[in-house]
Amino acid sequence: MSDTKNTPAPAPIPGANKVPKTERGRRTLRALLNAAAEEFGEKGFHDAAISQITARAGVATGSFYVYFDSKEAIFQALVRDLSGQVKDFVAPRIAAAPDQIAAEQAGQLAYLEFVRQHKEIYRIIDESEFVDPAAYREHYTKSATRIAARLQSAMERGEISEGDCEVRAWALMGINVFLGLRYGVWGDEAPEDVVREAGRFITEGLARREEKP
Amino acid sequence: MSDTKNTPAPAPIPGANKVPKTERGRRTLRALLNAAAEEFGEKGFHDAAISQITARAGVATGSFYVYFDSKEAIFQALVRDLSGQVKDFVAPRIAAAPDQIAAEQAGQLAYLEFVRQHKEIYRIIDESEFVDPAAYREHYTKSATRIAARLQSAMERGEISEGDCEVRAWALMGINVFLGLRYGVWGDEAPEDVVREAGRFITEGLARREEKP
Repeated sequence: MSDTKNTPAPAPIPGANKVPKTERGRRTLRALLNAAAEEFGEKGFHDAAISQITARAGVATGSFYVYFDSKEAIFQALVRDLSGQVKDFVAPRIAAAPDQIAAEQAGQLAYLEFVRQHKEIYRIIDESEFVDPAAYREHYTKSATRIAARLQSAMERGEISEGDCEVRAWALMGINVFLGLRYGVWGDEAPEDVVREAGRFITEGLARREEKP
Repeated sequence: MSDTKNTPAPAPIPGANKVPKTERGRRTLRALLNAAAEEFGEKGFHDAAISQITARAGVATGSFYVYFDSKEAIFQALVRDLSGQVKDFVAPRIAAAPDQIAAEQAGQLAYLEFVRQHKEIYRIIDESEFVDPAAYREHYTKSATRIAARLQSAMERGEISEGDCEVRAWALMGINVFLGLRYGVWGDEAPEDVVREAGRFITEGLARREEKP
């Protein structure tokens, strides 16, 4: 799994005017993004207000404009920040798995746990389709590219069957997103049970296993 | 497949004030819904206008208000109408398949073909999450319930492996929706190739098939 173990250093956030250089600046930017996730998640883009974001974050309005020019700019930064948060939460669990089949199941469980704790992520990513279509497309295209790359490596190592890794990446992403919607955002079934069932499907498909005679 | 063969008669459209009793009325309602799909698909809910819907449909404004009270009402009707159109397009192809594994692949190919011809469906269904959350949830919950029921029957007939049919239904729906987004709305790869690859994944999963020694 060495190809997935290199976690990149935190990158500048697209949409933000500048990268904070001090610890205090980093805390302010983080507080603004967390507050934006709450505000956009609860109210949606159109009803969200910069004044409410700064109030939730406990920072002055001036601090907002140090980092962002507009409500659109912080929304754009938030979509990329949430994408990055999912990746950072899930990647170490994938990297720690002994093989790719186990890795996909570990990734799925981690994703479901993340969604449980951040239910607002669905509303925000989904709304980006309308507020910032490029960010929406980038979120899914980047995720699929990441999944396809790890499937391709696993296929070359002989850990999974031969097949088109891009198609299977989009299929796996679809499974994760819809199980996350059903069992993370809408329902509260035990994620382990859901992932065990889904893992069996991802591993063996729907085909009936022939009993030994 | 007898359990999936009963296609219900056209139901009254929720959101519409009345069911047309004449052929002319049915044509007007259909023209309004088709025009609404174009208008909402191109402009989104907020920028869409009733006057543009009636102009596209070639009907008088008064005719609009025979069937709908508002832009919200026709949007709500449209989401349910599109749900029904997908179902009506896909169901016969599923019913004609010799077994459930073939049925899921036939359904997936039919869905991808439908999306190619109706790319606006994604924007409209996705926007319903914000304009009419109940319609959004109903769209996916009803689809998953339908898929789970046919998997359950197939499991009882011994055509697919044992497993939780609800989890597998949401997984299959996720695969269809995301392959539809990638290869139906965004890309133009041959749907047969995509579905053949996806079908192999759905049938056999990622596990490596052991070669006979």
